[in-house]
Amino acid sequence: MRYAVDLNALAAIVGANNVSARQPDLAAHSIDESYVAPSLPDAIVWPDSTEQIAQVMRYAYEHAIPVVPWSGGSSLEGNPVPVAGGIVLAMYRLNKILNVNEPDLQVTVQPGVIYDDLNAHLRRLGLYFPPAPGSSDVATLGGMVANNSSGMHAVKYGVTRNYILQLKIVTPDGRIMEIGSRAKKSTSGYDLVGLFIGSEGTLGVITEITLRLMGMPEQVASAVAVFDTLEAATATVYDAVRYGLDIAAIELLDAGTVHVTNVQQGLSLREAPTLFVEFHGSKAGVSDQTAYMQEICNDNHCLSFESADTPEQRSILWAARREARNSIKLYHAGEVLMSGDVCLPMSRFGEMVTFVHQVSTETGLQIYAFGHAGDGNLHTEIIIARDDEAMARLGNQATERIVRHALSLGGTIAGEHGVGLAKKPFIEQEHGAAVDLMRAIKQALDPRGIMNPGKIFA
Amino acid sequence: MRYAVDLNALAAIVGANNVSARQPDLAAHSIDESYVAPSLPDAIVWPDSTEQIAQVMRYAYEHAIPVVPWSGGSSLEGNPVPVAGGIVLAMYRLNKILNVNEPDLQVTVQPGVIYDDLNAHLRRLGLYFPPAPGSSDVATLGGMVANNSSGMHAVKYGVTRNYILQLKIVTPDGRIMEIGSRAKKSTSGYDLVGLFIGSEGTLGVITEITLRLMGMPEQVASAVAVFDTLEAATATVYDAVRYGLDIAAIELLDAGTVHVTNVQQGLSLREAPTLFVEFHGSKAGVSDQTAYMQEICNDNHCLSFESADTPEQRSILWAARREARNSIKLYHAGEVLMSGDVCLPMSRFGEMVTFVHQVSTETGLQIYAFGHAGDGNLHTEIIIARDDEAMARLGNQATERIVRHALSLGGTIAGEHGVGLAKKPFIEQEHGAAVDLMRAIKQALDPRGIMNPGKIFA
Repeated sequence: MRYAVDLNALAAIVGANNVSARQPDLAAHSIDESYVAPSLPDAIVWPDSTEQIAQVMRYAYEHAIPVVPWSGGSSLEGNPVPVAGGIVLAMYRLNKILNVNEPDLQVTVQPGVIYDDLNAHLRRLGLYFPPAPGSSDVATLGGMVANNSSGMHAVKYGVTRNYILQLKIVTPDGRIMEIGSRAKKSTSGYDLVGLFIGSEGTLGVITEITLRLMGMPEQVASAVAVFDTLEAATATVYDAVRYGLDIAAIELLDAGTVHVTNVQQGLSLREAPTLFVEFHGSKAGVSDQTAYMQEICNDNHCLSFESADTPEQRSILWAARREARNSIKLYHAGEVLMSGDVCLPMSRFGEMVTFVHQVSTETGLQIYAFGHAGDGNLHTEIIIARDDEAMARLGNQATERIVRHALSLGGTIAGEHGVGLAKKPFIEQEHGAAVDLMRAIKQALDPRGIMNPGKIFA
Repeated sequence: MRYAVDLNALAAIVGANNVSARQPDLAAHSIDESYVAPSLPDAIVWPDSTEQIAQVMRYAYEHAIPVVPWSGGSSLEGNPVPVAGGIVLAMYRLNKILNVNEPDLQVTVQPGVIYDDLNAHLRRLGLYFPPAPGSSDVATLGGMVANNSSGMHAVKYGVTRNYILQLKIVTPDGRIMEIGSRAKKSTSGYDLVGLFIGSEGTLGVITEITLRLMGMPEQVASAVAVFDTLEAATATVYDAVRYGLDIAAIELLDAGTVHVTNVQQGLSLREAPTLFVEFHGSKAGVSDQTAYMQEICNDNHCLSFESADTPEQRSILWAARREARNSIKLYHAGEVLMSGDVCLPMSRFGEMVTFVHQVSTETGLQIYAFGHAGDGNLHTEIIIARDDEAMARLGNQATERIVRHALSLGGTIAGEHGVGLAKKPFIEQEHGAAVDLMRAIKQALDPRGIMNPGKIFA
């Protein structure tokens, strides 16, 4: 035990059944989906309300005990791993949809609500929350706000940040407050909501989220285009974005990723660089866009172009992309996946993908490359044999080369997975002296340094 | 002189010709477009570079002298009025477009570049920056970032915040740093860019701005719909938004505003509540949208509906809206305009407009109401005779009633004009304890309190 957490004091707040220091509970909250080393907390609490969270925070603040909010645990950079020990605040039972404000196309939810569950609930109203993270079946709204998550539909609809109107938060010293506004626009004071979005639990606890929603599109069409080379595929993405096509998703899979999805999902896609594209709009609109897209693909000498506008056809086309990471994980069961997530200015995306393949060739490591190409967001998965330290070192070196190359091309070290632990070594190189401003803000809002310590920056 | 500003020390930084403490220069930088009382600074400097600004800040920091960045002076809440005296940092000569990164649809500008000038420059590339503030011929990019400005096209394209990728800033103690990323998405550390946007010059000086651009729409169509009652007009706005029309602008003018624009612009519009609507998209798309809009207007019993799709016709239709505030100003030359800027959740916008007219009736004050209806953003102009203190008191009371009513309907005190001085009395009511977080951030980033002191919160 790194901190002498008083379980009785916590039990007095949340009830004895909602506190644990049992080994299996601690272990279950010691690691996310990333490859960083597990770290055990000293206690888990499962609060039932904002008021309970405030009381837990007051206890922790008084005793200077670290607190880490934990919702889905599906993050990929070690974001909620309790590296300093202390209390894990398990948020996933706070999973109520509190209020659908249908006249204003808004919804208020607790942070434990899962993305897919929210959209299933909203479907009957013809509404939805568009960002579409890859792990949509496990990603919680709280985690999405904490990490500013996004996904396939960000290219058209933007990221989580673009949808959050208001948050209820608990400060590190246990004050409850609301930040933001339910008006669609506001210029009233500093953008506190924006600051909390993407702060990875380091500034306070988010206990309620009000977000705006979109109406479901009248028509959805999708297409799959296969190319001989990665260069042709990425040139196509660039042309589509540059010529202003109204793309709702444009996803790239390299040949290796197509291969493992074929094996794991029982598909028979041609194993070559492939784009999955989606259009949302009116019937006439998506048909126009699909035709433009086909033209651009042909100009870039695609090997094939297949479009679909029924839900059944679409879901087959999309199975490959949606399940890309899962397929890699299953294919390499027993091995370790080192996940990457850089994001580039659009004109440099192609170079970046080529560089990743070059690193793979040079190191002999298997590296899969895929991602939200329309945003310049490239994901990589480096395959490492379990307990092979030399290979892990090689993987870390490859990750470092990829991240530094992204920076040299004007990109960012984190497109949508946040910084957590895994990207922390690179934050100074990306932001330079601006990290000092982040530190000053952290110090101002969390003076005792108890909120998810050890993350984002040193 | 409130501060003993050493003009020689400033002249050594920016050159003797670029410093002034002459009365006309001080007076020209003592008041913006708002009705707040003028306040003279002690000195004006016109810097030529980021490096000079950093040196000015180091001088001011050392001597604890207030510094107020001043770009267009077109703000409406007293945002840059130097209430504490000190140095006005005149940014409007820093008006270069530094770099158009056409492959990535980005541009880097100095803060003194005027909105219309930027878009004129970009037109040959088929690109533009969409927010469209009302004072587009004088509003600078620096001011737009500082106030998170928006305007007619925000309903489709979002506000300034949604376009800013990277800022070069100078901290209050004179450090130069870059914040943000040129990648379209980033989850790398705290959103410092977001914090500076809308901070009204209270956290540091913005010296370079990199923003993303949009491609100009293939087709633009517009329409004007006239209604018997304000209720019918606002119900139409609500229906159009709720049914998900892809509106690029939807502007409301009340009958009084139409009257003064007729008089001042030589138009002969029917003097009744009027909506000005614009659609951007493909030829087929805008034609579909215009037809849907006409249907919604008919369902709400519009008196007339006129559409146009040539630039000439459109510019006549739009003259009224674009010049609304100017027309009121000219019509009431010699009188004072108290400008208002609340923003409501969409479902409450109609109630808000009705309330404003009720306040006008009850007080006998002439109040014009117009605004960016599709965002729920209502502007008001209360007409006050010059030097009539009793009337000014009545006007302030009316403003207070309007703002408090907006809050009671779940709205915000500032839709797009910021807080400045005029909205400062209401910030606690809107944000409650969250204002303490804003204060903590201000204290952390500007520990000597020299950046535009006296603004936003007490």
